[in-house]
Amino acid sequence: MDTAARIERALKDAVDHATGPGAPPKIAAALRHAVFPGGARVRPRLCLAVAHACGDDRPVLSNAAASAIELLHCASLVHDDMPCFDDAETRRGRASVHAAYGAPLALLAGDALIVLAFETLARGGSETPDRLAHLIQVVSGAVGMPTGITAGQAWESEPAVAIDTYHRAKTGALFIGACKAGAVSAGADPAQWEGLGDALGAAYQAADDLRDALAESEEMGKPAGQDEAHERPNMVAECGMADTKARLEQHVAGAIAAIPPCPGAADLQALIKGEAKRLMPKKLVRHAA
Amino acid sequence: MDTAARIERALKDAVDHATGPGAPPKIAAALRHAVFPGGARVRPRLCLAVAHACGDDRPVLSNAAASAIELLHCASLVHDDMPCFDDAETRRGRASVHAAYGAPLALLAGDALIVLAFETLARGGSETPDRLAHLIQVVSGAVGMPTGITAGQAWESEPAVAIDTYHRAKTGALFIGACKAGAVSAGADPAQWEGLGDALGAAYQAADDLRDALAESEEMGKPAGQDEAHERPNMVAECGMADTKARLEQHVAGAIAAIPPCPGAADLQALIKGEAKRLMPKKLVRHAA
Repeated sequence: MDTAARIERALKDAVDHATGPGAPPKIAAALRHAVFPGGARVRPRLCLAVAHACGDDRPVLSNAAASAIELLHCASLVHDDMPCFDDAETRRGRASVHAAYGAPLALLAGDALIVLAFETLARGGSETPDRLAHLIQVVSGAVGMPTGITAGQAWESEPAVAIDTYHRAKTGALFIGACKAGAVSAGADPAQWEGLGDALGAAYQAADDLRDALAESEEMGKPAGQDEAHERPNMVAECGMADTKARLEQHVAGAIAAIPPCPGAADLQALIKGEAKRLMPKKLVRHAA
Repeated sequence: MDTAARIERALKDAVDHATGPGAPPKIAAALRHAVFPGGARVRPRLCLAVAHACGDDRPVLSNAAASAIELLHCASLVHDDMPCFDDAETRRGRASVHAAYGAPLALLAGDALIVLAFETLARGGSETPDRLAHLIQVVSGAVGMPTGITAGQAWESEPAVAIDTYHRAKTGALFIGACKAGAVSAGADPAQWEGLGDALGAAYQAADDLRDALAESEEMGKPAGQDEAHERPNMVAECGMADTKARLEQHVAGAIAAIPPCPGAADLQALIKGEAKRLMPKKLVRHAA
């Protein structure tokens, strides 16, 4: 099974479990809407690529890790889009969960996805209990407090924050978590994979800031101009377009350089180069050409 | 250390971890506000009472289980109180989290508490990995989909639901989870503890419906009359005050009868009798006297 199919299969198993017998129908539909069809699935692909590079001797556990990372990402999108945050009506080119099912079910669906992520880890880890506690700590550190993506968004309610601190928590933490979770699920030391996740998260955030500033709603599948509208720190506003583009390219190069020597290094390089191409806003590519 | 002190200590350790170095200050304050000072802490007390009855040979794990159950309960209260649900300005006799910190931080604080619950389980379970996967599945089943407390609230968005199904998910699931988590953390079979949790959850929900219908805001520390205001199923509306009071008494008797033979049976009986006294609305006690 190729990686994309493996991820969709693992996510389907997880969501099927949550929407099984006894589930209220509307929230069950909201959960499926939040997870399928997905976006680029970049975080779970990264997680499995790192697991593969580390030998992937426990694919049931690495599947669970990749699913959990993606479910947590989906949860954060559902809650981000709610009226009390971005109030975004669209996501991935169609109605956001609250636009389709209302704010109460969006709130509950996000909560249920967070719970499902950890339940999925436990179900996938029941045969490899020696790795489970560490894996959960890596994943929870990426999304929870004090420095996970929850903290990243909470910085938006503070009077001031350094943009690097903000971006590292808001976006970098889950990329780092994806890399480290892949390593831990394969029984490897996660520390040497932190640099890769950090660089990729920074690249991704620079690209997101560029697209938001360029107002590429259609390309993003969600409303653009959100940072300015919500007075959030944005690298383009702070450093300018050219500097942000240069930083994006530096972060991509940094990510490739951060891959430790391993059997799957070539696959990882290919993944990163493909992402770099996908991340660069079309307008900037056309402009350069 | 007595049970109450043990619970507060374990919760403090968990919240200290989440609000440690790097945490944005406002959400850190919101997390503390959500957890301290607590209510009756009935679910973690129940969890530890069951663990005690089962030998409590791994108190680090049972502390983690009790904390996780309470953190998840606190998370549900924070999200319940938000404007898109009950829009309640008060909780436990003071400002609800969204009233004190705004809806965005309340949403994030609830999310962070859910994550923290599972992180706390993993941290407490690192020395007892053989019990961790099962424990997480018991806890996630109590709060997530398809039949945990998230599902319970999601039934409020459906056109119709049987009141027993609704109450068992909305309230019973976490009482059952507290009992089963106590058993699993002590290495015991959780199945024989389900009846106790189920009966106590039903008693608690009957009491809550009575107090809501009696409009005892002061006694509850939160706005009363919410079920009628939100057109939610309420046992008093369906069965009348006298029948609901009779059911509450039956559920308490059922809970005592459901305690399996064990060394801590007397402690558990005392806990349940104390709760029964606390749960019965003062107006009904005065009326009877």
